Amino acid sequence: MIASSQKHWSGDVAELLRVEEGFVLADIDTGSTPGYKKNKGHAADDLKSGATELSEYQERLYARSRVDATNAAVLLVLQAMDSAGKGGIIRHVVGSVDPQGVMLSAFKKPTDEELEHDFLWRVKRRLPASGMIGVFDRSHYEDVLIGRVRRLAPENEIERRYAAINDFERQLTDSGTRVVKVMLHISPDEQKRRLMRRLERPDKHWKYNPTDVDERALWPLYMAAYQTVFERTSTDHAPWHVVPADHKWYARLAVQNLLLEALEEIDPQWPAATFDIEAEKRRLAAT
Amino acid sequence: MIASSQKHWSGDVAELLRVEEGFVLADIDTGSTPGYKKNKGHAADDLKSGATELSEYQERLYARSRVDATNAAVLLVLQAMDSAGKGGIIRHVVGSVDPQGVMLSAFKKPTDEELEHDFLWRVKRRLPASGMIGVFDRSHYEDVLIGRVRRLAPENEIERRYAAINDFERQLTDSGTRVVKVMLHISPDEQKRRLMRRLERPDKHWKYNPTDVDERALWPLYMAAYQTVFERTSTDHAPWHVVPADHKWYARLAVQNLLLEALEEIDPQWPAATFDIEAEKRRLAAT
Repeated sequence: MIASSQKHWSGDVAELLRVEEGFVLADIDTGSTPGYKKNKGHAADDLKSGATELSEYQERLYARSRVDATNAAVLLVLQAMDSAGKGGIIRHVVGSVDPQGVMLSAFKKPTDEELEHDFLWRVKRRLPASGMIGVFDRSHYEDVLIGRVRRLAPENEIERRYAAINDFERQLTDSGTRVVKVMLHISPDEQKRRLMRRLERPDKHWKYNPTDVDERALWPLYMAAYQTVFERTSTDHAPWHVVPADHKWYARLAVQNLLLEALEEIDPQWPAATFDIEAEKRRLAAT
Repeated sequence: MIASSQKHWSGDVAELLRVEEGFVLADIDTGSTPGYKKNKGHAADDLKSGATELSEYQERLYARSRVDATNAAVLLVLQAMDSAGKGGIIRHVVGSVDPQGVMLSAFKKPTDEELEHDFLWRVKRRLPASGMIGVFDRSHYEDVLIGRVRRLAPENEIERRYAAINDFERQLTDSGTRVVKVMLHISPDEQKRRLMRRLERPDKHWKYNPTDVDERALWPLYMAAYQTVFERTSTDHAPWHVVPADHKWYARLAVQNLLLEALEEIDPQWPAATFDIEAEKRRLAAT
């Protein structure tokens, strides 16, 4: 299905970026811009027109859920190495729709209470209600990414989690939630440039954490963990999308289009009135 | 204190709209535009430049809280009759800042679980963390507004609540949260026009509820309940502001400016680095 904003694209963005059988992360060019027929100069305008479209879809989705129990919702799962641009996606893509229709959750290092539960416990508590767009800034995938790289759980527990994730996401999609899984993919060099910029700008120092540099040494291990995630959890019901993200403008357009496509599949319609319109007009006029 | 965006205003918006001793709600002209020196034609531009300013303040507030425990936060409390424009304020004023810095809470009819607790229980669970802008779409004031009008609690319990609210808000402000209380004030005629428009547009039917018409008969009782709220809970630490809201463009500009003034009072600065910048540059360069 092609969203109307996709006239600037040479194909279906979801298909172009989807992780399919045989996918190899190392083959992806992080500086590429798959499918976008124009260049950076047009990106701002296209993002803006996409935002208008996204906004209307979001309102229809929300409106629909108020009137009948379709259970339709969207869950955007964002994963990435540090500085890859998750924050920018939330600010510039998600931030363009009515905040009343968005439920945003940032998952950080688990708390003691969270650690006392299964790894899915905390994410289940933050699932979007019907009519909402949920956004996970990091997610249950941390438990098989940093969890694997830093050996935060025994090997057999990590192994168990892939199937648990697939079951969990299957329940979600079966009950009406579209799950849009995105990895923003940058190169180690691009990350270096971005971290350096944070060090150079006093208004960005707060975003810099010295441990970010230590993590860079683990880059190959993280990429291997992502590759395993893709092989084990890119399913028909909840496929992964790898978005080349060295160009922020491209990543934002691409994620916006992934959301547009998910909403177009739901295709929410304005609900019909549940009351007698003419009778209400008379009643109101009489007040 | 005058925010720089206030050059278009003849005075301090917070002062102009503040509920002071002797305030009479019935004297307020809901179609007026206190203090704004220009007209509707300039409102969109001024809202946009205010949004840029608000966005930077929000980011500084958030950044600051990541580094040291200032406990500074902002809580915007929105109260209004139906269709007065709370949703538009959230969409167009709050929606202009990074959603990662906003915690939005809509308080509807209390659930059974909420009713088993004191009326402040559910709002206390939704207070903004340090660095955040919290927004209450309706609030603990419902419990002395509809609570009083519809007699949802005994008279002495309603009476008890005003002092409880003042104590609660005093604790909030003492611990660093600026509380910005806003009533959006429309006339019954303007509400009638807005409800009629909802009935005329199929994409607005979902926003219409037949009970809205029944509530209109209670308008004088609601205004009396608001008047009492202002007399009992407009305090030095958390004053009320009554925003004439027949003109949506005015109400949005006014609330934006109330937020700007609250943030200007906090005056959050970019935090200094907590690490050795030059050493980090060298360490990063070596990776």
